[in-house]
Amino acid sequence: MATTFFAPQQEWLRKAEEAKPALHHTLCVPVRMVEPVQDTAAFQGWRYDVSSLSPQTVYERPLAVGQSFTFDFGRHMVGYLSLSTKTLRRCQDAPIRLRLMMGELPAEMNTPLEPWTAWLSRAWMQDEIINIFEVDQSITLPRRLAGRYLRIEVIGASMDFDCALNRVTFDAVSSAGDEQVEEPDGLSYEEHAIYRVGIETLRECMQTVYEDGPKRDQRLWAGDLYLESLANRYSFRNFDLTRRCLYLFAGLVAEDGTIVSNIFERPTPHAQDSSYMITYSLLWNSTLKEYLIDTQDKETALDLWPVAKRQIEDALSYLNDDYIFDIHKRQVWIFFDWRDGLDVSTPMQCATVFALKETYELAKMLGLENEVKHYPLIARKMSTAALRFMYDSKRGVMVSGPNKQVSILAQTWAVKSGILNAKQGAKALETALAMPHSLMPGTPYGTHYLIEAMLMCGMNTEAKAYLVDYWGGMIKRGADTYWEAYDPKDDFLSPYDFFPANSACHAWSCTPVYFMQRYPNVFK
Amino acid sequence: MATTFFAPQQEWLRKAEEAKPALHHTLCVPVRMVEPVQDTAAFQGWRYDVSSLSPQTVYERPLAVGQSFTFDFGRHMVGYLSLSTKTLRRCQDAPIRLRLMMGELPAEMNTPLEPWTAWLSRAWMQDEIINIFEVDQSITLPRRLAGRYLRIEVIGASMDFDCALNRVTFDAVSSAGDEQVEEPDGLSYEEHAIYRVGIETLRECMQTVYEDGPKRDQRLWAGDLYLESLANRYSFRNFDLTRRCLYLFAGLVAEDGTIVSNIFERPTPHAQDSSYMITYSLLWNSTLKEYLIDTQDKETALDLWPVAKRQIEDALSYLNDDYIFDIHKRQVWIFFDWRDGLDVSTPMQCATVFALKETYELAKMLGLENEVKHYPLIARKMSTAALRFMYDSKRGVMVSGPNKQVSILAQTWAVKSGILNAKQGAKALETALAMPHSLMPGTPYGTHYLIEAMLMCGMNTEAKAYLVDYWGGMIKRGADTYWEAYDPKDDFLSPYDFFPANSACHAWSCTPVYFMQRYPNVFK
Repeated sequence: MATTFFAPQQEWLRKAEEAKPALHHTLCVPVRMVEPVQDTAAFQGWRYDVSSLSPQTVYERPLAVGQSFTFDFGRHMVGYLSLSTKTLRRCQDAPIRLRLMMGELPAEMNTPLEPWTAWLSRAWMQDEIINIFEVDQSITLPRRLAGRYLRIEVIGASMDFDCALNRVTFDAVSSAGDEQVEEPDGLSYEEHAIYRVGIETLRECMQTVYEDGPKRDQRLWAGDLYLESLANRYSFRNFDLTRRCLYLFAGLVAEDGTIVSNIFERPTPHAQDSSYMITYSLLWNSTLKEYLIDTQDKETALDLWPVAKRQIEDALSYLNDDYIFDIHKRQVWIFFDWRDGLDVSTPMQCATVFALKETYELAKMLGLENEVKHYPLIARKMSTAALRFMYDSKRGVMVSGPNKQVSILAQTWAVKSGILNAKQGAKALETALAMPHSLMPGTPYGTHYLIEAMLMCGMNTEAKAYLVDYWGGMIKRGADTYWEAYDPKDDFLSPYDFFPANSACHAWSCTPVYFMQRYPNVFK
Repeated sequence: MATTFFAPQQEWLRKAEEAKPALHHTLCVPVRMVEPVQDTAAFQGWRYDVSSLSPQTVYERPLAVGQSFTFDFGRHMVGYLSLSTKTLRRCQDAPIRLRLMMGELPAEMNTPLEPWTAWLSRAWMQDEIINIFEVDQSITLPRRLAGRYLRIEVIGASMDFDCALNRVTFDAVSSAGDEQVEEPDGLSYEEHAIYRVGIETLRECMQTVYEDGPKRDQRLWAGDLYLESLANRYSFRNFDLTRRCLYLFAGLVAEDGTIVSNIFERPTPHAQDSSYMITYSLLWNSTLKEYLIDTQDKETALDLWPVAKRQIEDALSYLNDDYIFDIHKRQVWIFFDWRDGLDVSTPMQCATVFALKETYELAKMLGLENEVKHYPLIARKMSTAALRFMYDSKRGVMVSGPNKQVSILAQTWAVKSGILNAKQGAKALETALAMPHSLMPGTPYGTHYLIEAMLMCGMNTEAKAYLVDYWGGMIKRGADTYWEAYDPKDDFLSPYDFFPANSACHAWSCTPVYFMQRYPNVFK
């Protein structure tokens, strides 16, 4: 191991390992067979209709080359697929060749994957070829899968014997626990569905870390962690998992002490070189603060406090003499959302102010505000600079970059950071939303901050309507869990140039759970 | 288990299990990289040229989608493929997807397999798709493979890290042992090659049973066993393996006590219902007789003697009043060779006479000739009937069936059974071979009996020339091991309607080993 920035890093990794949760197992079986139907009115052009077959009929049919069966498990699952085969006539005299495909959405299942045009690895797709040399046995795929649908195609079989699928099962895993989660009172039918799908999304992503998505990237990201831990507060309350993730990030900081954007668990926890993403490292501070609020676990917060300070120190190194965060100071990727063309200078200015305030709050809770007593002044100076250089007071909106881009995210972060007060914020949001060319969020992640900003500005009706329209829109399009990317106007939106690569169960989209519980007066 | 015909069947299976040989392991590595070249002059239209890359260069290259590498291990191998990968740049952030293809021959490797037109299972082909979620580790494919060439195609990779193949190895297994086998003296360079390839063919097929072919069917067939055990006598002398196979067949006889044509080892030894093939069950008797000659193991031969008697009893049940074996008495498959249109009535008459004589010989060696003293008379009567009804004395050839078909195999079995004496046999063979429309053998299996018959008739020069031309022809076409099916006039001959399904290492083709040692005066 290279030299560490913080002396106790190995100890922190050990604490992370100790907090590793057990996985709960649920045995799932297919509830029906379905048939794909190409349908331009359906989300991404495909839907499933209920088949005239039942799983039981399929289990009685001899497998023949060319057959294709799609099992519907009726819910999203994360875990391990098992299938067994049985001999029907004579005995096996040749191997059987099957193509298995697991997926989250009908179009992902039925769109030809070749040619593969996404810039992510083709191997993320959950299709596998298997050759069965011994029937009358059960096979469990070593690969962890995520999805609701399973297609089995028969590619190779022998004429000299008959066998059938005997039983298809799925061992679904999650660390969220299988207890029923309390639901907020007074929800409409539609709001209730929105809440439930959020719960399912979070549950599926809670594994031995908070994953971003269980199909892809199966990985702990600091930004996703922030939103997941907020939703966890109002649902599973598995704060050990949050502590584990905080420690993983602290144990694996880069050589300069900055939090990395994401972490891989296997074979042992590790991070990529240069996976720095300052927006996410600052959100780690907020996650630690929220964790302390939830648990009163001062021991952990004190343990990790030097890490939080280091993130602020790092952020402040970008400031120029005008107290402006200079995004060009270093060549780094500053991520707020998957939305091409988003100018990040104003959002970044605001996010830094927000981080300063949050970290100062954390210090106060730990009785350590003396260590960071310069933070409030810097936050004020940065706020003033933002209002001076980044606020179009005539129109009442934040603008970003040399072209004075008006994006929704510039407004939301100005509100979140308190640079705009509630009244200014409401004006800014309303104005930006009303502008035909303002840049909208591209994902539920970005949209989370919009809803939050609306609620902070008292735009309760608008927030509720927007949330119901946006997240409810995914449900209307068939979501069992919320998606990584969603634009009501573009079914084929993909950050990766090919929509089947998208994750359709993505934890950063689970925050209706948070909003509906955090703002009971709004959602009832 | 169903009722057994012979009381000690379970005991026989136990004895078979006890005689199961250990496998010898040899670690193989690729000796070069090769490039496929389409070439109408090459066997089946493809050849491999040596590549400008070396395995070592490939191990240093980042894997990129679209790459395809073919490793040449320089020899046929049966066993288990391992490959490891290593990280070159950053760390793995997505799975890698590879298509692996192992094969015995260039055309098998390079002919598109879809659409699959063979009537055997597509799953016999040794192509596998794997998704690697953890690089820097070694993977061993669970499936046992057979071949010389391995192609690795990169189907999925991530842009965000680089990895390479680290090492490709093959754990080659055989029960034949790794001792050098003595070679006959005085062979020409070409004959020496013919002998060596026979040895390699047999070695590859000697696993925990004598397999027909290690790529396909990976199975013990009674007819193949007969020829393999003859070649084993003059090479590896692993008579325990022969005893094991004899016991397996005896333990797994059909309900009526007939030897089944073939046996499956896994998960426990078993046979198909109705896999009866009388030509093979009679050859089991000969295998037992030859085993006794090789080992003087009277205990085993006495133990199994009732089974041998039962096979003769079964054969005699087909005889009509004229002492003709009536092939239509029951609806059964009578196999002498893969050759469309072969009439089997005369070969079957002869094979029965041969079996009677062989079994009587066996009885005499065991001092039990009194039990079967009627055999010689029946053999004589059948021989007389054959000469009367199946011999065209004008032309001096055996004819078969209502259309008086002249096939090579009708002559060879007449010689093998002694129905034709050496002089008559030579005349019959010469005449049949000279006829433009006589039916030739379609495989090395059928050709074995032709060579044997020639040698029995003193046609030594012709036998040697034919063997060198036929088996040497496979070597000239690139054989590392002898093929299941081979017709010098038809490179694309396949019993299965698609040549890539053919086995290119098939033990019934290994008998040059037998001939060259059994007839030292001929081959020198």
